[in-house]
Amino acid sequence: MTTPLRLGIAGLGTVGIGVVKIVQTHADLLALRAGRPVTISAVCASSRSKNRPVDISTYDWVDDPVALALRDDVDVVIELIGGEDGPAKALVETALKRGKDVVTANKALLAHHGNELAELAETNGRTLRFEAAVAGGIPIIKTMIEGLAGNQIRRVMGVMNGTCNYILTRMESAGLPYDTVFEEARQLGYLEADPNLDVGGIDAGHKLSLLSSIAFGTKVDFDAVVLQGIGAVSIDDIKLARDMGYSIKLLGVSQMTGRGLEQRMTPCLVPETHPLGQLQGGTNMVVVEGDSVGQVVIRGAGAGEGPTASAVMGDVMDIARGLNFATFGQPVTSQSVAPAAVVTTGASWYLRMTLLDKPGALAKVATILGNVGISIDRMRQYTHDDEQVPVLIVTHKASSDDIALAIGHFAESGVVVGEPMALRIENV
Amino acid sequence: MTTPLRLGIAGLGTVGIGVVKIVQTHADLLALRAGRPVTISAVCASSRSKNRPVDISTYDWVDDPVALALRDDVDVVIELIGGEDGPAKALVETALKRGKDVVTANKALLAHHGNELAELAETNGRTLRFEAAVAGGIPIIKTMIEGLAGNQIRRVMGVMNGTCNYILTRMESAGLPYDTVFEEARQLGYLEADPNLDVGGIDAGHKLSLLSSIAFGTKVDFDAVVLQGIGAVSIDDIKLARDMGYSIKLLGVSQMTGRGLEQRMTPCLVPETHPLGQLQGGTNMVVVEGDSVGQVVIRGAGAGEGPTASAVMGDVMDIARGLNFATFGQPVTSQSVAPAAVVTTGASWYLRMTLLDKPGALAKVATILGNVGISIDRMRQYTHDDEQVPVLIVTHKASSDDIALAIGHFAESGVVVGEPMALRIENV
Repeated sequence: MTTPLRLGIAGLGTVGIGVVKIVQTHADLLALRAGRPVTISAVCASSRSKNRPVDISTYDWVDDPVALALRDDVDVVIELIGGEDGPAKALVETALKRGKDVVTANKALLAHHGNELAELAETNGRTLRFEAAVAGGIPIIKTMIEGLAGNQIRRVMGVMNGTCNYILTRMESAGLPYDTVFEEARQLGYLEADPNLDVGGIDAGHKLSLLSSIAFGTKVDFDAVVLQGIGAVSIDDIKLARDMGYSIKLLGVSQMTGRGLEQRMTPCLVPETHPLGQLQGGTNMVVVEGDSVGQVVIRGAGAGEGPTASAVMGDVMDIARGLNFATFGQPVTSQSVAPAAVVTTGASWYLRMTLLDKPGALAKVATILGNVGISIDRMRQYTHDDEQVPVLIVTHKASSDDIALAIGHFAESGVVVGEPMALRIENV
Repeated sequence: MTTPLRLGIAGLGTVGIGVVKIVQTHADLLALRAGRPVTISAVCASSRSKNRPVDISTYDWVDDPVALALRDDVDVVIELIGGEDGPAKALVETALKRGKDVVTANKALLAHHGNELAELAETNGRTLRFEAAVAGGIPIIKTMIEGLAGNQIRRVMGVMNGTCNYILTRMESAGLPYDTVFEEARQLGYLEADPNLDVGGIDAGHKLSLLSSIAFGTKVDFDAVVLQGIGAVSIDDIKLARDMGYSIKLLGVSQMTGRGLEQRMTPCLVPETHPLGQLQGGTNMVVVEGDSVGQVVIRGAGAGEGPTASAVMGDVMDIARGLNFATFGQPVTSQSVAPAAVVTTGASWYLRMTLLDKPGALAKVATILGNVGISIDRMRQYTHDDEQVPVLIVTHKASSDDIALAIGHFAESGVVVGEPMALRIENV
């Protein structure tokens, strides 16, 4: 097969430029590997006149992204516009309906509309690929759908937002408070326009919901992802965790339990000896556990021009080589709708709180935990100057429900000041 | 497509049993994911009457593996016999000629005959897959051929023999000498019948030669892999390395240089802060560096029933889904024959030697290094009881050639006792 595979690229931001660079600089290599040339027919972006580091003058320019999907000289539409609705969605829908394959890096779009888009792809016999939407350059979608296709997946975990990991590891290494590092990250351009997408865990939650669907053969259900951002993690938490041999990570965990599908993206304590605990800076890491393969850990750049463009091109090359799999690894008709597990699996918990310095305060807290059925593994009371006493409690295995119940009672106890910090200690 | 994909399995050792287990226990899952059932038509092993943990009574039994390749009810031959020649080779050849796809876990076969077998596959329009041959459950072949298909690969590195890594990390953690741990490993069943395949680096070298071919579009050239086993690594080396912040690993490195293709599988010092340096026990790790993606690190079980069977089934599922790529990622006719780089790229070196305790000995060594053009980064002389003085030298960047030259001069110097230990400090 020597017919070229012709691309139409919508969006010429960082990633789009990266894709153009690869197609231009590696034309021979791509043709050798795919057995056919990979070319660009047309591009589309918000500004035509913008100065760009690549020459796009030989490609047709279209102003409306949807027009890319209508062109006879486009086989694959690459959607790099972003956003869960609007032109990105219109483009992908039109492309699939018009018999084009689609490659996208848009996690928000798929987290919200992945089910209907997968169905659209299937109905039209086209392929919809999204390697770049999860964990940047890490080929995790391919690994899970293809490489581990012989496994029943038991659990997927991952650090999938580099900005959050940058903030947490920078807080630790520099001993700086959250607000300072958050501001640094903003100035470095690491944060989305709406920073809550990053630090609120939403972006990472989008990614987790896509991995869950692949892992467990379920419909994408982003709304069921339990989200907790990193904004409340203090430098004290990081230091206390480190003293006990743990690192705090914004960790996504997805697993199928007897009570339904558990999906959470929350700050957790993980052992500093595990690769997850050792992960520094903006790097991403995904851990997949299969019943045959055991634990596979993949680490790589989670964002940036080159890594994300590499993932987009991996999908393009698969299409060029004739691959056409179901979007999430199995036909949409065979996917199940899993109930969301309301109570998560038990874990030890890290509880940091401030008590009033008065007799019986600690006893009251211990009694509350005991009444809820939570037993205490360790408790430390720290030295203090004023009337507020910092206390750290590590529990034995407890459900998130019981922890929430105990925290409710703390609030009514009259001895706990403010909101306690509760973090799972994840058994990785 | 609902026609079953029918397997013929040759070899029912650990991995073969693992494959049968997956096909039996995950029949529904495999059918859903592949869009067609995956079944076993016939099996073959050295003993029919052997007690096995799976029921194989519903499969046809053949005594001669080659007979599997001749059956009309076999679409894919799974070769798990092992050995670089003999029945394994005969089976794979016959299968490809008879229009069967082949999945194999046989690194020795491919390291020695991969080029001709890939050509045979291509001539016959069949696929020859070998994910299980390299790094067990880690989907590294798929990652390199497919996931990173948009990258020019710059370097591949890896710890790909779990037994060697077990020995080295056990020496370090228990403070035991090589011979003791080697014997332990033998008793635990970790060693091949010919232990030199493991500790001599041959098995890992086989694997590296396959990754090189994929990475650089070159013919498989196992004979050009520079091999050095771990037998000469002492507990002293491990401790000295650790004092400087390094771990010693049997590390495979493959990179294309101006002087040709450099392939080596040798004990190296790697920073203990890098994932490679942190790798413990029998786990494997492969690091791929692409020009767009940067560094991707994958870690997983390098051997064992489940992980290896997982890799075999990944290949089977690809075939079931209709994938048919060139064996090493591009057509054999387009592969180049790269000259082997005789002199490897420069690196700092760890040199441990024993000097006679006489005036001017250290000066003589330093002079030899200076004359060869090697400058010294650090030198330590250790306390000693007898007339032999342990000395550690860390050089600045030097080629393997210059190091060999210096070692030759040491032998003639009259002050160096025995053979110095020279280990690269790999810049990972």
